[in-house]
Amino acid sequence: MTVNNFDYYNPTKILFGKDLYGRLPEEIKSHTQQTKVLVCYGGGSIKLNGVYDRLMASLKDFEIHEFSGIEANPEYTTLMKAVEIIRLHQIDFVLAVGGGSVIDGVKFIVAAAKYDGDPWEVLQRKPGCVFEEAIGFGAILTLPATGSEMNSGAVISRSETKEKRTMGGPMCFPKFSVLDPKVVASLPQKQIANGITDAFMHTLEQYLTYPTWNLLQERIAEGILQTLIETAPEVMKNPSDEKWAANLMWCATMALNGTLRAGVAYDWSTHMIAHELTALHGIDHARTLAIIGPNLFRIKLSNKREKLNQYGQRVWGLQDDCAEEAINKTIQFFHDLSIPTRLQDYVNNYEGTAEEIVKRFEQRGWENMGERQDLRLEEVEQIVKNSY
Amino acid sequence: MTVNNFDYYNPTKILFGKDLYGRLPEEIKSHTQQTKVLVCYGGGSIKLNGVYDRLMASLKDFEIHEFSGIEANPEYTTLMKAVEIIRLHQIDFVLAVGGGSVIDGVKFIVAAAKYDGDPWEVLQRKPGCVFEEAIGFGAILTLPATGSEMNSGAVISRSETKEKRTMGGPMCFPKFSVLDPKVVASLPQKQIANGITDAFMHTLEQYLTYPTWNLLQERIAEGILQTLIETAPEVMKNPSDEKWAANLMWCATMALNGTLRAGVAYDWSTHMIAHELTALHGIDHARTLAIIGPNLFRIKLSNKREKLNQYGQRVWGLQDDCAEEAINKTIQFFHDLSIPTRLQDYVNNYEGTAEEIVKRFEQRGWENMGERQDLRLEEVEQIVKNSY
Repeated sequence: MTVNNFDYYNPTKILFGKDLYGRLPEEIKSHTQQTKVLVCYGGGSIKLNGVYDRLMASLKDFEIHEFSGIEANPEYTTLMKAVEIIRLHQIDFVLAVGGGSVIDGVKFIVAAAKYDGDPWEVLQRKPGCVFEEAIGFGAILTLPATGSEMNSGAVISRSETKEKRTMGGPMCFPKFSVLDPKVVASLPQKQIANGITDAFMHTLEQYLTYPTWNLLQERIAEGILQTLIETAPEVMKNPSDEKWAANLMWCATMALNGTLRAGVAYDWSTHMIAHELTALHGIDHARTLAIIGPNLFRIKLSNKREKLNQYGQRVWGLQDDCAEEAINKTIQFFHDLSIPTRLQDYVNNYEGTAEEIVKRFEQRGWENMGERQDLRLEEVEQIVKNSY
Repeated sequence: MTVNNFDYYNPTKILFGKDLYGRLPEEIKSHTQQTKVLVCYGGGSIKLNGVYDRLMASLKDFEIHEFSGIEANPEYTTLMKAVEIIRLHQIDFVLAVGGGSVIDGVKFIVAAAKYDGDPWEVLQRKPGCVFEEAIGFGAILTLPATGSEMNSGAVISRSETKEKRTMGGPMCFPKFSVLDPKVVASLPQKQIANGITDAFMHTLEQYLTYPTWNLLQERIAEGILQTLIETAPEVMKNPSDEKWAANLMWCATMALNGTLRAGVAYDWSTHMIAHELTALHGIDHARTLAIIGPNLFRIKLSNKREKLNQYGQRVWGLQDDCAEEAINKTIQFFHDLSIPTRLQDYVNNYEGTAEEIVKRFEQRGWENMGERQDLRLEEVEQIVKNSY
């Protein structure tokens, strides 16, 4: 075990709670000289849950441009249309109103707007490509899940090639994010369950690795997991109870804002495999994590045994050598959220998925993933097959 | 219990770990057009522990001005001399090299340098005065304790009037802070014990109040306390063991960087009373917290019972109704660090201290302090008398 160096930097200002839209004009004005704002959103749920109307009322002194239709798994060709609007109207502030897909999409939009040439080239270079420049943006979160509202990373899809690529950079942090727990009340049960699962798996990817000497980061990860376990049944039962909605929302943000990652060993290979299930079969991101995660933990049990035991003991109250029981508890947690954990529960045409994913990883030169850089492609294939 | 709105904003970049001084030139250059830097430090321990030499080697391309002699409980008249140097040489970046006193002092220096008129006037207005402007500064932390390296607050003293005043503002965050656990090895045992006590009491002030629905913030507070309890005996025994030094350092930073405070009820009346013990008797800040804290918890037991029970159960592994036992555990924790918890252990002339503190609070109009705004001056007097 070692003490690892780390950087921690997160300049996003969080406005958490109720009735905060009145502060938007001041927040926006502190980041732009203009009064033009491009408001980006998704399929229009913000027009049903009151967010759109409250937002427009608060921004009545601004020249508002709108871009709607950012899809789940935001699509390169869609996003490039927003880039054109920014260039045409010389806009220099964007507001992302939505969940992780809209916020991720806007991170790409604000970076691509400053990039000469085809921004897809940047994404093709390697996972986690960094853009050097971006125009400023803020976020109004409508779905607690991905943590995108307080980090600088994004995942962008290109459907013609069935690819998902990650990007980021210090310029891609939201300047501010408004987190209002009230939005949870208007979400379908399925999306709340997805959000809980997403936050839970984000935490596990940064925790179920090998022990380092970052004892506080481990305690915080355990605190997020414990809070999610306590919150999950309550927020599912009564999503309009703001106290549980608030806990889900803050856990999801804290799970991926850099706090947990500081100095620890992290994995992320569940995400890398799971992204392909979304790309190939269109399964919700959170659900692909629930499908792959437990199978990956089992295949890499000897790598992760110490932390799985600690997880079982501290988070689930199990005894001694409880690694496998802890994995079963995790699966049961997903099932209690009505999240199936087998690929056959989602699609019929799952045969060949494992081989296809391995082929893609090979093409991109992705190998030796995971916290010990020892997850081989044969193991990836086995994990996916075990998930059928 | 309610869900409270909160803002969270902390733009300080943390560089944590070993051998990071080589990155200083780049970090400084990203915040100033000049190559002038005012390096501020304390009594000169940085010349004995190697920090000064390593720092100067890394800054060889800069025009360095120096200001030494910032004392524990940094003094207004001392700090104003640094302000004069900044104005004389038109310096626009400062490096604070030291512990909480030096970093606090530099926060005042960088704000006062931009303030026309007598900055003491600002501090006189009310506790926690906000300066609107400041020049940029970074910090090299040499003593884990106060958390000043990752927040925007400071405490400034004026010995002629035996006063301590708090200040802050969003412009007073360090642009970056370098946290190298190696520095712990060169500290006297007494300073390590003070640092642990300071971080522990910062956490308790934001935790031992009344329950809110901020469940994750409570878990993180408990995680810091547990990590400090685990770390304390080890780092005292072997301060050159970097893994324990690193845990102490990160706990102290996280205890006061805004994470714990988000939405919870906080107290801070132990600090308000304890500051007066330092002002009147010159006792180290951390030690005054250990003197006052437990006595305040006892006087306000009925206010704090639910959280004291939770603290006893989750942090100390006690059973059921354990509020008083949890306070005793806290006192024992300080004693194990060789921190006495009675005023008579430090000074002989303690008679009259309680009345003097009450008089000062009256003069400033400070009353009804604490998380429920119900700590009366009679109770303050009793707390101080119980601490004799």
